[in-house]
Amino acid sequence: MSTAPFDFRLDATEGAARAAEFTTPHGTVETPAFMPVGTHAAIRGLATSEVGAMGARMLLSNAYHLYLRPGDAVVRALGGLHAFARWDGPMLTDSGGFQVFSLARYREVNEEGVTFKNKFDGSLHAYTPERVIQIERNLGADVIMQLDELIDGGSASEPARGAMERSLRWLERCRVEFDRISREGRAPLDTVPTPPGTPLLPATNDDERRAPQQALFPIVQGGVHADLRRASMRGILNCGEWKGIAVGGLSTGEPKPEMYATLDLCGAELPRERPRYLMGVGFPDDLVEAVGRGMDLFDCVAPTRMGRHGTAFTPRGTVQLLKGTNRLDRAPLVDGCPCPACTQYDRAYLRHLFAADEPLGPRLIALHNLAMLMGLMREARAAICAGDFARWSAEWLLAYRAGGQADSAE
Amino acid sequence: MSTAPFDFRLDATEGAARAAEFTTPHGTVETPAFMPVGTHAAIRGLATSEVGAMGARMLLSNAYHLYLRPGDAVVRALGGLHAFARWDGPMLTDSGGFQVFSLARYREVNEEGVTFKNKFDGSLHAYTPERVIQIERNLGADVIMQLDELIDGGSASEPARGAMERSLRWLERCRVEFDRISREGRAPLDTVPTPPGTPLLPATNDDERRAPQQALFPIVQGGVHADLRRASMRGILNCGEWKGIAVGGLSTGEPKPEMYATLDLCGAELPRERPRYLMGVGFPDDLVEAVGRGMDLFDCVAPTRMGRHGTAFTPRGTVQLLKGTNRLDRAPLVDGCPCPACTQYDRAYLRHLFAADEPLGPRLIALHNLAMLMGLMREARAAICAGDFARWSAEWLLAYRAGGQADSAE
Repeated sequence: MSTAPFDFRLDATEGAARAAEFTTPHGTVETPAFMPVGTHAAIRGLATSEVGAMGARMLLSNAYHLYLRPGDAVVRALGGLHAFARWDGPMLTDSGGFQVFSLARYREVNEEGVTFKNKFDGSLHAYTPERVIQIERNLGADVIMQLDELIDGGSASEPARGAMERSLRWLERCRVEFDRISREGRAPLDTVPTPPGTPLLPATNDDERRAPQQALFPIVQGGVHADLRRASMRGILNCGEWKGIAVGGLSTGEPKPEMYATLDLCGAELPRERPRYLMGVGFPDDLVEAVGRGMDLFDCVAPTRMGRHGTAFTPRGTVQLLKGTNRLDRAPLVDGCPCPACTQYDRAYLRHLFAADEPLGPRLIALHNLAMLMGLMREARAAICAGDFARWSAEWLLAYRAGGQADSAE
Repeated sequence: MSTAPFDFRLDATEGAARAAEFTTPHGTVETPAFMPVGTHAAIRGLATSEVGAMGARMLLSNAYHLYLRPGDAVVRALGGLHAFARWDGPMLTDSGGFQVFSLARYREVNEEGVTFKNKFDGSLHAYTPERVIQIERNLGADVIMQLDELIDGGSASEPARGAMERSLRWLERCRVEFDRISREGRAPLDTVPTPPGTPLLPATNDDERRAPQQALFPIVQGGVHADLRRASMRGILNCGEWKGIAVGGLSTGEPKPEMYATLDLCGAELPRERPRYLMGVGFPDDLVEAVGRGMDLFDCVAPTRMGRHGTAFTPRGTVQLLKGTNRLDRAPLVDGCPCPACTQYDRAYLRHLFAADEPLGPRLIALHNLAMLMGLMREARAAICAGDFARWSAEWLLAYRAGGQADSAE
């Protein structure tokens, strides 16, 4: 029985693939599992109750976005991320490093951290490893991520090494701050900076200042360079006892074979008895390939983003709903799929929603794509438990790739 | 027992106010009732199942929009509007006259009808009374509306008279075409014009050509001029036996006292034993005022449009969710409201959704506003049945107007 927070119990393995149970303070996640992304503590037009009804168990949110709006102090004052987003199950926050590096209009990176300009009001913000941990401890997700320095997936060895090594130094600072807050508690609520216009927050007592039970995950970096990935894993394992480890910096432009080779390496060399979270990978075929290489947890905005544009995942590849062939098609999008798009509507009506620019369309297909990935991970888990993953995954990938209409790279 | 299609049974009256049951081929509507608007056979981001769960009984859609996309022939080929929109209850289509007069980029009106340019592809379309009836009989809603000529609510007597008289002549042409289709059936499906890109539709048999059982509603016009409204009602009643009658051209810019006076007149002089449908009026206080003047059915895009902009109806006036006072407010939007916004979330989170431009916000508040209006009409009905409407409505209006933050005129 795995009941203590952050226990990870392997139920079955087949080759590198694993079926396991990851316990958090808010319940247990059966892995492999896909985590829907609610960047602003909301999953693009979907209620958490709907995503839960499709089988979601662990949700992801983003510290960068919540720091800017409504502010981590506001979320804490409202009872923390679980109470705010109305999700009583496991949650994870990304540090927002990726967003700072990809979205901020202006940024300056040095050893201390990242300075960036808020795109909404132009204000300057300093994002350091310590500040990120303070924010994530205020938000209160079960799993929180370190701040790391990001580079392009195809970067050459030298810039990749520099970013990897800095990420290790930042990890150590994250760990020290995490432990300090565990001992000393969080800052008094009324001293945490808030966005302009926020009413005065109440001063809080010792009980409220006590940090919630959380796990800090490090992130393996190093681009597509095996020596750097090995050095990153070594550095991470030397600097602390981790409840789980993430693999970052993939699916960012590098060729697929290099991504798969990196996953092979990490799958083989990371500790077996800890969950591995592959960040930002969310196309169906990539998920199946990554499960076969020993990855356990996944997140990506692809299912909701593609849903917004009318592209639906199916077991026979992707379907662009706007295609004229759907105009008179009274068949469901995917026969047997439990989501509302497939059980309540037909392809002709779904096409109409996108043609008429009706917001029900993006909403339905975002939920469909999430349901599809979560169901796919349940199928993969069942196959691993049955010792049938090799056959199942080969057949699944063949059928998916034979039908594929849209490229799986965005 | 009112069971025959288009029967209208008065359950109770109090002054001019009426509680009744209106039976359609797809079931019975208890009135007064608010009908949610699904212009494109979709209610701005909402599934029909959700709107139904909040008490919707009769839905409205728009012939103009469906004629342009996906085409009335396509909807007919897919089984008609009920099958297309997945709503097995009563439905109504507006003719689209209002949209032709208000939305089309180019239009030319003469005695024959309206010529307008499709805003999507620039194509020219002729909208005549006969064509509108053909379209609405292809769509297959239970209640269909005549084509009328629209003018501004505050128009002077002469232009208002011209449009009112033309609308009567168009009504006669609508009636003749409606009866012809009842006798002769609808045009063969493969001869109905379709938008570019539509696949060839199958030729159909006599059974498919048979027109569905529908009721054509005339529209009382005449602006705010009592003599013209009287002449319009007289002309309508002289030209046919109607299953129900609409009152149009109100809430279009005229002062409120003039709107209420017109409703007093229509409420007093229209046949008691037929439903009265007040078109395009959908603010809570206007609904209560109109029920008190004998109106039975209502529709308006206001609840969904205002919901998109974060304005919520409450029994104490409207609430703009973006207001800073909501930032830390953990209270529900409306205590006791059965909608998901009020039962699953708090004001602070709803505010955050609009601040972060998350599409869950417009969706939740659109549904809340619809739920509020539908619940309000159920309350009004209960009050009429209890002989308590005068007291109830006076108290309700007092509380609503005392709290009002946003103007009830858009």
